[in-house]
Amino acid sequence: MELGVCYYPEHWPEDTWAPDAARMKALGLTWVRIGEFAWSALEPSPGELHFDWLDRAVDTLGSAGLKVVLGTPTATPPKWLVDAYPEILPVDAWGRLRGFGSRRHYCFNAESYRRETERIVTLLAERYGHHQAVQAWQTDNEYGHHGTARCYCQNCQRAFRGWLEERYGTIEALNEAWFTVFWSMCYSSFDEVDLPNLTVTEPHPSHSLDFYRFSSDSVVAYNRLQVKILREHSPGRLITHNTAIFFELYDQYKLAEDLDVLAWDNYPLGMLEESPLPDEVKACYLRSGHPDLVGFNHDLYRGVKGKPFWVMEQQPGQVNWAPSNPLPAPGVVRLWSHQAFAHGAEVVSYFRWRAAPGGQELMHAGLNLHDGRPDRASAEVSGVAEEIPNRDGEYRQAGVALLHDYENLWATTLQPHAQGWNYWGLLVGYYAALRSLGLDLDIVSPQRDLSGYKLAFAPALHLVDESLAGHLTRYVERGGHLVLGPRSGAKTLSNRVHAPIPGPLRGLAGVRIDHVDSLRPGVTGAVTIAESSYLYQTWADLLTPEGAEVLGTYQTDAYAGTAAVTQNTYGRGRCTVVGPWGTEAFHLNLFKRLLEQAGLGWLELPEGVRLNRLRRQGILQNFNSEAVATAHLPLELEDGTIAAHDVVFLKL
Amino acid sequence: MELGVCYYPEHWPEDTWAPDAARMKALGLTWVRIGEFAWSALEPSPGELHFDWLDRAVDTLGSAGLKVVLGTPTATPPKWLVDAYPEILPVDAWGRLRGFGSRRHYCFNAESYRRETERIVTLLAERYGHHQAVQAWQTDNEYGHHGTARCYCQNCQRAFRGWLEERYGTIEALNEAWFTVFWSMCYSSFDEVDLPNLTVTEPHPSHSLDFYRFSSDSVVAYNRLQVKILREHSPGRLITHNTAIFFELYDQYKLAEDLDVLAWDNYPLGMLEESPLPDEVKACYLRSGHPDLVGFNHDLYRGVKGKPFWVMEQQPGQVNWAPSNPLPAPGVVRLWSHQAFAHGAEVVSYFRWRAAPGGQELMHAGLNLHDGRPDRASAEVSGVAEEIPNRDGEYRQAGVALLHDYENLWATTLQPHAQGWNYWGLLVGYYAALRSLGLDLDIVSPQRDLSGYKLAFAPALHLVDESLAGHLTRYVERGGHLVLGPRSGAKTLSNRVHAPIPGPLRGLAGVRIDHVDSLRPGVTGAVTIAESSYLYQTWADLLTPEGAEVLGTYQTDAYAGTAAVTQNTYGRGRCTVVGPWGTEAFHLNLFKRLLEQAGLGWLELPEGVRLNRLRRQGILQNFNSEAVATAHLPLELEDGTIAAHDVVFLKL
Amino acid sequence: MELGVCYYPEHWPEDTWAPDAARMKALGLTWVRIGEFAWSALEPSPGELHFDWLDRAVDTLGSAGLKVVLGTPTATPPKWLVDAYPEILPVDAWGRLRGFGSRRHYCFNAESYRRETERIVTLLAERYGHHQAVQAWQTDNEYGHHGTARCYCQNCQRAFRGWLEERYGTIEALNEAWFTVFWSMCYSSFDEVDLPNLTVTEPHPSHSLDFYRFSSDSVVAYNRLQVKILREHSPGRLITHNTAIFFELYDQYKLAEDLDVLAWDNYPLGMLEESPLPDEVKACYLRSGHPDLVGFNHDLYRGVKGKPFWVMEQQPGQVNWAPSNPLPAPGVVRLWSHQAFAHGAEVVSYFRWRAAPGGQELMHAGLNLHDGRPDRASAEVSGVAEEIPNRDGEYRQAGVALLHDYENLWATTLQPHAQGWNYWGLLVGYYAALRSLGLDLDIVSPQRDLSGYKLAFAPALHLVDESLAGHLTRYVERGGHLVLGPRSGAKTLSNRVHAPIPGPLRGLAGVRIDHVDSLRPGVTGAVTIAESSYLYQTWADLLTPEGAEVLGTYQTDAYAGTAAVTQNTYGRGRCTVVGPWGTEAFHLNLFKRLLEQAGLGWLELPEGVRLNRLRRQGILQNFNSEAVATAHLPLELEDGTIAAHDVVFLKL
Repeated sequence: MELGVCYYPEHWPEDTWAPDAARMKALGLTWVRIGEFAWSALEPSPGELHFDWLDRAVDTLGSAGLKVVLGTPTATPPKWLVDAYPEILPVDAWGRLRGFGSRRHYCFNAESYRRETERIVTLLAERYGHHQAVQAWQTDNEYGHHGTARCYCQNCQRAFRGWLEERYGTIEALNEAWFTVFWSMCYSSFDEVDLPNLTVTEPHPSHSLDFYRFSSDSVVAYNRLQVKILREHSPGRLITHNTAIFFELYDQYKLAEDLDVLAWDNYPLGMLEESPLPDEVKACYLRSGHPDLVGFNHDLYRGVKGKPFWVMEQQPGQVNWAPSNPLPAPGVVRLWSHQAFAHGAEVVSYFRWRAAPGGQELMHAGLNLHDGRPDRASAEVSGVAEEIPNRDGEYRQAGVALLHDYENLWATTLQPHAQGWNYWGLLVGYYAALRSLGLDLDIVSPQRDLSGYKLAFAPALHLVDESLAGHLTRYVERGGHLVLGPRSGAKTLSNRVHAPIPGPLRGLAGVRIDHVDSLRPGVTGAVTIAESSYLYQTWADLLTPEGAEVLGTYQTDAYAGTAAVTQNTYGRGRCTVVGPWGTEAFHLNLFKRLLEQAGLGWLELPEGVRLNRLRRQGILQNFNSEAVATAHLPLELEDGTIAAHDVVFLKL
Repeated sequence: MELGVCYYPEHWPEDTWAPDAARMKALGLTWVRIGEFAWSALEPSPGELHFDWLDRAVDTLGSAGLKVVLGTPTATPPKWLVDAYPEILPVDAWGRLRGFGSRRHYCFNAESYRRETERIVTLLAERYGHHQAVQAWQTDNEYGHHGTARCYCQNCQRAFRGWLEERYGTIEALNEAWFTVFWSMCYSSFDEVDLPNLTVTEPHPSHSLDFYRFSSDSVVAYNRLQVKILREHSPGRLITHNTAIFFELYDQYKLAEDLDVLAWDNYPLGMLEESPLPDEVKACYLRSGHPDLVGFNHDLYRGVKGKPFWVMEQQPGQVNWAPSNPLPAPGVVRLWSHQAFAHGAEVVSYFRWRAAPGGQELMHAGLNLHDGRPDRASAEVSGVAEEIPNRDGEYRQAGVALLHDYENLWATTLQPHAQGWNYWGLLVGYYAALRSLGLDLDIVSPQRDLSGYKLAFAPALHLVDESLAGHLTRYVERGGHLVLGPRSGAKTLSNRVHAPIPGPLRGLAGVRIDHVDSLRPGVTGAVTIAESSYLYQTWADLLTPEGAEVLGTYQTDAYAGTAAVTQNTYGRGRCTVVGPWGTEAFHLNLFKRLLEQAGLGWLELPEGVRLNRLRRQGILQNFNSEAVATAHLPLELEDGTIAAHDVVFLKL
Repeated sequence: MELGVCYYPEHWPEDTWAPDAARMKALGLTWVRIGEFAWSALEPSPGELHFDWLDRAVDTLGSAGLKVVLGTPTATPPKWLVDAYPEILPVDAWGRLRGFGSRRHYCFNAESYRRETERIVTLLAERYGHHQAVQAWQTDNEYGHHGTARCYCQNCQRAFRGWLEERYGTIEALNEAWFTVFWSMCYSSFDEVDLPNLTVTEPHPSHSLDFYRFSSDSVVAYNRLQVKILREHSPGRLITHNTAIFFELYDQYKLAEDLDVLAWDNYPLGMLEESPLPDEVKACYLRSGHPDLVGFNHDLYRGVKGKPFWVMEQQPGQVNWAPSNPLPAPGVVRLWSHQAFAHGAEVVSYFRWRAAPGGQELMHAGLNLHDGRPDRASAEVSGVAEEIPNRDGEYRQAGVALLHDYENLWATTLQPHAQGWNYWGLLVGYYAALRSLGLDLDIVSPQRDLSGYKLAFAPALHLVDESLAGHLTRYVERGGHLVLGPRSGAKTLSNRVHAPIPGPLRGLAGVRIDHVDSLRPGVTGAVTIAESSYLYQTWADLLTPEGAEVLGTYQTDAYAGTAAVTQNTYGRGRCTVVGPWGTEAFHLNLFKRLLEQAGLGWLELPEGVRLNRLRRQGILQNFNSEAVATAHLPLELEDGTIAAHDVVFLKL
């Protein structure tokens, strides 16, 4: 467990660098990320290289005993580069060219930009690849932010056609896979296939899903280009990339394969403000963020590589970019830091050292104020650094897995069929219910080896082929318990519908789904489990048992008596199917039954209080702005309460 | 009364066609619509014709005793055609080219597309025009859907200038008609007139109204092109086109002149979801649709041609395209079918035979599930087929007319002057009040001979010239009763204002309108009729009687005491003017008085229950999800209740 | 105090002109504005001049004893001009060309349009410059309306680069001023700087602020071009321009420097409908408008030139352009007229003489109906004309100033940092509180000599440099009292942040601001002043006293006890800092204390009642639709109530 900070030496007079570095060290920081937006400072005009200042900055930080994460500056190509190669500018879905003047103004498929990228990354890698202070690299910055992972330019159109040809081989295969006979969309050649934007009405869902895959692959390929150069010239250094909150425009699993460690940027308050949570929940967690939104992202990105992750940018105070930007409560920077470690973070690095005097982020707080005096977070960070030696940093596999996959997100979002459909919302609902029962979770790909998990929840396992079905069947046969949520098994990988749903999962699930229900926001239906009644909203799969036991039935007029929740015994394990998108009460009741079956214990945590268990230590966190009574919890707690925004460590 | 189904043989293996046809026949279906999106299957590359499969499909259906409606496939030009003639792609009001990848991607004024249309329609008409199974043709599919009836491309600009020249003869006449001296918009030549989009602020209302007319005429001309070919090569066959819910981008009356029968596509649940009705009403009719939204469309399209119509696509289960898509209640497919016949439908044809395995509509239910097993609607349809022999199918003219005209819709929508203005909303308000009083209505053009109607309601007869005024005056003189709603008589046909309003209707109405009031949503005014007080909203015409008797007066502060409702005796008839957009209670009270004057009876139907009277049979329909007591109704009912979603037939 | 009217002789048959003029005169009008949209009537094709009708119109009006304001017709270039010089069409922020068909379809930086402007204005000025009837000129019409003051075309890009070069001299100076090192935005030459639209995420705030300044300067320069010609050819005539409600796209102070008198267009009901006020307030003032919205604009535009102003267009009845358009209450045209004079208007001119028969504004009322009969306002206007001789028209400087500056508006709007931030809303909040206490206010630039004001409120003095700080410091030193609201002193003129805030105001204010709070709509905080508790919303500056006395402290959890309101004694004066955006109750309480300190009296006016004091007369105005008791007010009132929408004159 280490702490770090993001630093922009190019923003500040050189005589401040050494005192800054000394104070970083004194605060207990060990890592400093620099350079990721510095291209115009490094190369103010084509070929005019000014690496001297970076040499001195790296030396200064290294001399102070700090380790450097050096960012490649490709998220911000300079104006001269854009003017020389205007074709690198991306085009949005409405056909508008997106210009210079902020960041991420490039298309991942522009050949000229790939060449310029190779050039600048090679220059940096050659110069700093063996520098002792440089212990890690960050490629680019937040790929795909501001919607840039999907570009609709001519470069992309050409590349997409090539990608399709590689995927399908023949145009007949594409026509068959997509079912283009619908609405006369049959193609005679790959050169006929356009990008799926600006169509008269919604584009073909198979076309769009493949475009999403292609766009994701374009990001992955672009990152791989950078990684290859860095590996060659800078052996032994970690290579990472910083992704962000619920980022979904590319497949994190694929991108992470090329990295040594995955990082993400954690802004709990901005995340809450931009979330679709109701106003009263936002008011409740106004100055601390929502524990499960943050925790979900930690677990998500730990799961992506299946190993400890970094928080590359940790909110240290007020941000500037959300619709509203409340001041964090005292103590929450410490809370967030320990929360991150409790979820398996290896490094927590604050963004940024000192608030910027100008530009888009000038009201973004840092560890220091604009004038250099320490901001409130500094003392909290220093405290965290002192606590670290007595803290446990060793994550162990959880007993419960939550299955997540980007293609399921894309496919269900492309065709929501219900206004309230929200893939992340469904997953966070499952997650929050289990977290409120005190469980640790691993969020993992359904493709992963699940054998270590007693329960695997798949809230929306939409796209399923025989191979995945076989993998999951083997998991259950050997004693696992798979829980399938709404819309699972509905589609093939090419986004056609299974007939009948749930396709190749039918035998495992022991049910067939001939009908679904989709409800407008505000309309609910009722389901009965063990004589108690619960509500659901948005979506309901109607189950026809084919061997499965019925655990719950719908009470809704139009289909009262139909099976809503079933459980199939299969091999040494079980497969439970949950038809409706239930409320929290529904999830809590059902999940307790399933946890009991799996022999997993739980405890009922108070609202806003969360618990993580590392190998040797439990970490109890209070996200409420009041103290909360904890005496009734079966935990070895010294006090009967946990203070507002406090963290308490427990022996396990 | 016959039943049919929409079928896509090109989607399914050929060996399923004959069994499918046999099952259609067994269900009681007699018509099958095919072919309307099949262009790329018929001609996968330019001139490479594959009509053999269609030959076999038509033969198979014919052999099973089914009659075929063959659709021309022009709603979906194949990609090779778009690539060969890129100028056929339409341009939206924001200037964006709308691309290939869904449907309706063509401009009605593209010469090349008219040539290609002639070619493919001629090929089809020649080949199948005399085939015994082909008993009807459908031109294209849902003209204008997805906003495609108004295109802003260069073709349209050229054509619009020609259209204007034909309409006005000289540019001086246009300048005068439009009043272009306003804001210096005088033109020197027709070549100076642009399309009315992308202006700095709102475009000139006379310019826009003529563009709407031109766009409508473009659709009509395009359809006529197809009809002409079909008539020539396929004598004796019905020619139809399927329009849809509240379609308003072209003049249905003009289009229908070229057809033998008009069809429309009836999706009660999607219609309700997309309507502006309040949430509580939507919740109430969630799984049955709103009786008056559906009924209005039936009466609207029957009125357009003044004769029985077809429902070419009848929702048989869940749809996929509304914001949310609830599962219909059991029984409502039967209810909808009988409702259609009760309103004068000749054929009800379900969309579609079997749910599609891929593409944009893959979650749209059919009579059969994706895997071919019968879906729930099949049994209901079979039941309807069995009921038909004992049902009355003969519509007789109603006693009451509701006057509707597309130009009034366009003109009031172009300049709503009040946020809550909604042309259809106002008409449906009148319609629903009269339907809840048990009346049958004909929705007809104000130009029509009205002599058969005791009462003619014109909720918003906005555009009036001397000729129309004369026609209506003659109707009243001869004993008719014309009821004029808000904004009637306000404008000339060129969308200039009458001075004073109601222009040429002034003498007939016996009132003058010097002021109107426009109220923000949520603000209401009060009006008194016969000492009872009622609310109104959105709009109020302030009436100055010039001979008319005052039936109601405003109580609203700023103009208390002003006449709100007047009645003028004229010749042997009456003209009533209704100034405010009243609430349901206002309409019910007023309309009962008018019905009484006209010697027309009424009865007060329970909420959600509707009655139609054909020549020999009454049809009572319950759209509620509960049974409703009917014992108090003066109808010859066997039971004292009508079950949820049930239809009861009465002897007349 | 004089009355006038806007008139369009080109819209009406020539034989109506003389009778119209006679009736204008008889109503008591003295001014008539004509010509401002008449270009195509004056020059129907290039060089074909038809000034004869205008000669006759001016002569007719002059002969009737009316004075003419002649408008230059540049707001509506004719179609032939646009076709000859298509480059004059403006481009919106989304990159779309805005076309012909309404008005204001030109770019302020199009050279060809500047030439055409010079030509037409010179022709008019030469012909009518010495005409005895022409006593004033209006340049163009409502510059910048419909968002046209910011154009994103290639002309503007070129001009912007030149403007930047002139402002900064070297590109290094720009890089430094903007802090372009942020996100690698350093420029090597002015030719590299694009316009700040269509960027991937928000553009750089310094870049945008300078573009706003450039756009404003472009309007000012264009107006100056016209003024120069008019001054040369028409000596001794007033030159004015009519701006409108809360117009903010250019700097009114700079534009007004070139004018003799500033005019604005006052539409109280449209203004209310389009305002962000809550529904219940809108309902309350539905037919009278909100007194403080209207009053604010009067005081704003009087303050812009620091002298009496004109209302060039006064709403005389219903307008057509708001979302909803209620009919004004009887009496409010008189109320609005006297309100204008009470705020220092010299001329009130009604828009328009007769309602237009066609075009975009055909439902806009005038003094006469469409058919020429007098509309309701005529009688009220005639009454006002009769009252004028006994009315006081002499405005005297108020005791209290409200500081306003367009650059503060632009900068805080560019980076609101809080969803509820609304610059005008904050200012109107301060204004309304002071007006409800019976005070007159001057709204003036912070740059102005403030020595006459006992109190100067600066609700959001965001951008401050040393020079302005010095100016304000001298004001306080000499005994003034400066009140600084939220976000004051936060930024430099180049939109960088001061470190620390409030920058050069720190010494004067005696506080430092290290943190701010930004709250989502619906979330409030609490502040205590003198043991009473008040709420605030949206924004709070947290104050660290450095010599100032604490008047109020925050009670909000995360920073309870922090100073919220402070007062610093400085020289012979005081500087009060108000950290939070308080509610009305907060403002009333605090402002009374400050007024007491300043030795200024106040009285508590009833809701909707407002008082103005001219040199010799008080004007009490009731905007409520009911009579209001006034007996308790310490005013010499004859009656104990003021009637609905009435005006009462008081001796002072």
